[in-house]
Amino acid sequence: MRATLMHQAGDVRIETVPDAAIRQPTDAVIRVVRASICGSDLWPYNDMPAGRAARPMGHEAIGRVEAIGSAVERIKVGDLVIMPFAYSDGFCMFCDEGLQTSCQHGGFFGQPDPGGAQAEALRIPYADGTLYPIDAPADEELMASLLTLSDVMGTGHHAALRAQVSPGKVAAVIGDGAVGLCGVIAATRLGAEQIIILGRHPGRTALAREFGATEVVGERGEEAIDRVRALTGGVGAHAVLECVGSEAAMATAVGVARPGGAIGRVGMPHYASVAGGLRSFYGNLTVAGGPAPVRAYIEELLPDVLEGRIQPGRVFDRLVDLNGLPDGYRAMNAREALKVMVRP
Amino acid sequence: MRATLMHQAGDVRIETVPDAAIRQPTDAVIRVVRASICGSDLWPYNDMPAGRAARPMGHEAIGRVEAIGSAVERIKVGDLVIMPFAYSDGFCMFCDEGLQTSCQHGGFFGQPDPGGAQAEALRIPYADGTLYPIDAPADEELMASLLTLSDVMGTGHHAALRAQVSPGKVAAVIGDGAVGLCGVIAATRLGAEQIIILGRHPGRTALAREFGATEVVGERGEEAIDRVRALTGGVGAHAVLECVGSEAAMATAVGVARPGGAIGRVGMPHYASVAGGLRSFYGNLTVAGGPAPVRAYIEELLPDVLEGRIQPGRVFDRLVDLNGLPDGYRAMNAREALKVMVRP
Repeated sequence: MRATLMHQAGDVRIETVPDAAIRQPTDAVIRVVRASICGSDLWPYNDMPAGRAARPMGHEAIGRVEAIGSAVERIKVGDLVIMPFAYSDGFCMFCDEGLQTSCQHGGFFGQPDPGGAQAEALRIPYADGTLYPIDAPADEELMASLLTLSDVMGTGHHAALRAQVSPGKVAAVIGDGAVGLCGVIAATRLGAEQIIILGRHPGRTALAREFGATEVVGERGEEAIDRVRALTGGVGAHAVLECVGSEAAMATAVGVARPGGAIGRVGMPHYASVAGGLRSFYGNLTVAGGPAPVRAYIEELLPDVLEGRIQPGRVFDRLVDLNGLPDGYRAMNAREALKVMVRP
Repeated sequence: MRATLMHQAGDVRIETVPDAAIRQPTDAVIRVVRASICGSDLWPYNDMPAGRAARPMGHEAIGRVEAIGSAVERIKVGDLVIMPFAYSDGFCMFCDEGLQTSCQHGGFFGQPDPGGAQAEALRIPYADGTLYPIDAPADEELMASLLTLSDVMGTGHHAALRAQVSPGKVAAVIGDGAVGLCGVIAATRLGAEQIIILGRHPGRTALAREFGATEVVGERGEEAIDRVRALTGGVGAHAVLECVGSEAAMATAVGVARPGGAIGRVGMPHYASVAGGLRSFYGNLTVAGGPAPVRAYIEELLPDVLEGRIQPGRVFDRLVDLNGLPDGYRAMNAREALKVMVRP
C-alpha cells in the first residue's frame, strides 16, 4: 500500500510500504477515507534531522473498517469510523476517567508503530477502545467536519474546557491556525461573551469572526497584552486558549490572562519550561491542558456536527490525493493553505 | 514605636520608627498581639543586597484595634482581629470573587508602605475589607492557631484547593516547612485518603504524621519521584501541594503528579519559568496557585480552629519578643526552629 513518510525536514515522500494488517486480536484495519495534515506535522517538517529512520505521518482520519481481530466486539467490518489521534484500550483507569491520551496501553498514530494515517490503510490497536463509529451518511462537507473530531476540533474544545470557558466569560485565543479557529468555535459553543483572537492572517481572522470571535488583535508580545487588557476593562481574559505551542505564545497567554484566570494550552510545546512563572503565580493563574482526549469529546461534539450547529470542517481549504501531499505540506508550512485534507 | 527592619541579608534590626497612625479614613491602627516569621521572610534574609532601603518585616499578625478612620464601619476599636498578609478593599471585583490577593486597591504587608507586622503597631489600609474580627476569648494555644489564619494555614489550604484535593484522593506535599505541614492539615481536612509528605527533617515529618500524613519520602529529585510512584500504584498523586518555591521543588511536583492531576503551588517562586513544561503537558497536568487569598478562607477555617478540630498553631515551636527576633530569624534559617512567633 502507499503511505507518507517523513525522511527529514522538508522531505516528505509517498512510498510503497507493507500492507496494514491485523497483528493483535484487538486490532482493526481501516481503509482511510479522509486524512489531514496537522499543524504539529509541521514541526518535523521544519526540524527533523537527517539520518533518522523515516517516520510514517498522519494521525487524523476518518476510515472504513476493513478487517477486525478476533477479540473486537464493538466495531464491525464496514463501519465508518472516526479515528482519534491517540489509540486507547478503553478499559484502563485513565480511559475510565476520560483521559484516553494517558491510556496505560495507549499511544499515538503517526509513529513507526502503529503507523500513519496519511496512507491508504492503517492498523488500529485496541479498535474497540479507539474507534468511534458514525451512524450517518456523510457528504463532502460533513466529512470534513467529522474529520476534525479526530483531532483539531476536539483539541480546540479541550483548550476551551481547560481554560474554563463558561457562559458570560471573556476568552482570548492565541493563534489563528486551525486549532485556534476550532478554539473559537468551542468558546462560542460554551457561551463565552467576548472572544478575542490573536492572529495576523486576514483570511483566518475573518473566519474566526464567522465562528464567533468578537475582536481581532494583530499585535504581538507586550503590545498584544496591552491591547487585550484595553479590550477587557484593563484586567484581561478569564479564559485563554493557547493554540500555538511556542514559548512566546505561552508568555503572551500568561500576560493576557485576568487574575484568577485559566490558560488551556494545547499547542504542542516547543519549550522546556513554562514562561511567565512569576506572573502566573502572582496572578493566581491556572495553567492546564495537554494532548486532548478527543475520544472522550466525540460524543458531546458529534450531534452539533451532524445537525450543522458547528462547522469546524470549514478550516480545510485544500483537498489533495496522496500524490498531492508533499505539496500540501509545503503549502501549509508557507501558510498558503490553512489546513489540508487528503483523500487517499 | 519599635519595628523590625531588614537592612541586608543576615542583618535584621529592631529599631525605633514613627508611630503607626491613621492616614486614610478607611485605615485602622492595630496594636500587634502576636506576629510571626514567615518562610518567605527568609528569602531576603538570605539574598537581600546591601545598599537598599531598609525593609519593614512581617506580614502575619493578630492585633487589637487601637484606632479607626472616619470611614471604617465594620471594625471597632478594641476588636481582636486576624490580619491577612495582604490588605484588600473588600469591594472590588476580585474581592467579590474571593481573590483578595489581586484586589485592585490592595497590596502586601511587610513593605515600606504600609509597613510590617513584626512591630508594636501597624497601620491597616482598608480596615473593613482587610481585618477579620474574632469574637472569642483566646488562650495562648488558640492564639497560635488563630495567627496561622493570617497566612500559613490559609496558604496550605489554598495549595490543597488548587491541587483539587477531595475525598478519596491521593495527595503529595512537597516540603516539610510550616506551609507544607499546614498543607497536610488541609489535605486531611478535605478528605485525602493517602497523604505523602516529601521532607527530610525527622521532627517535622513526625508532626506531619500527627497532622494526617500517611507516608514520608525523604529522597529528592528523580529518586523521590520514583518513591512516590511506587507508593501510588505506579501512577503518582492526584493532588500535589508545592510548598517550597524552588525550581527543583516544582520539577519534583510535576514528576510526582498523576496524569490528569493538579499541582497547587504556594511556595513563593524563586524561578522565572515553571519547570517540567513537557512532562506537565503530556500528563495533562493542571498547575495552579499563587498568593493565597487567606481573607476568603478565614470564615471556613475559623470554626475548625475555635473548636479544636485542627491545631495549625502547633507549627510554632519558638516564642520571642521583639528583641529576640533577630535570633529567631537565625534559628529559622538554620532550621533550628520550625516557625517563630513574636509577642512584641
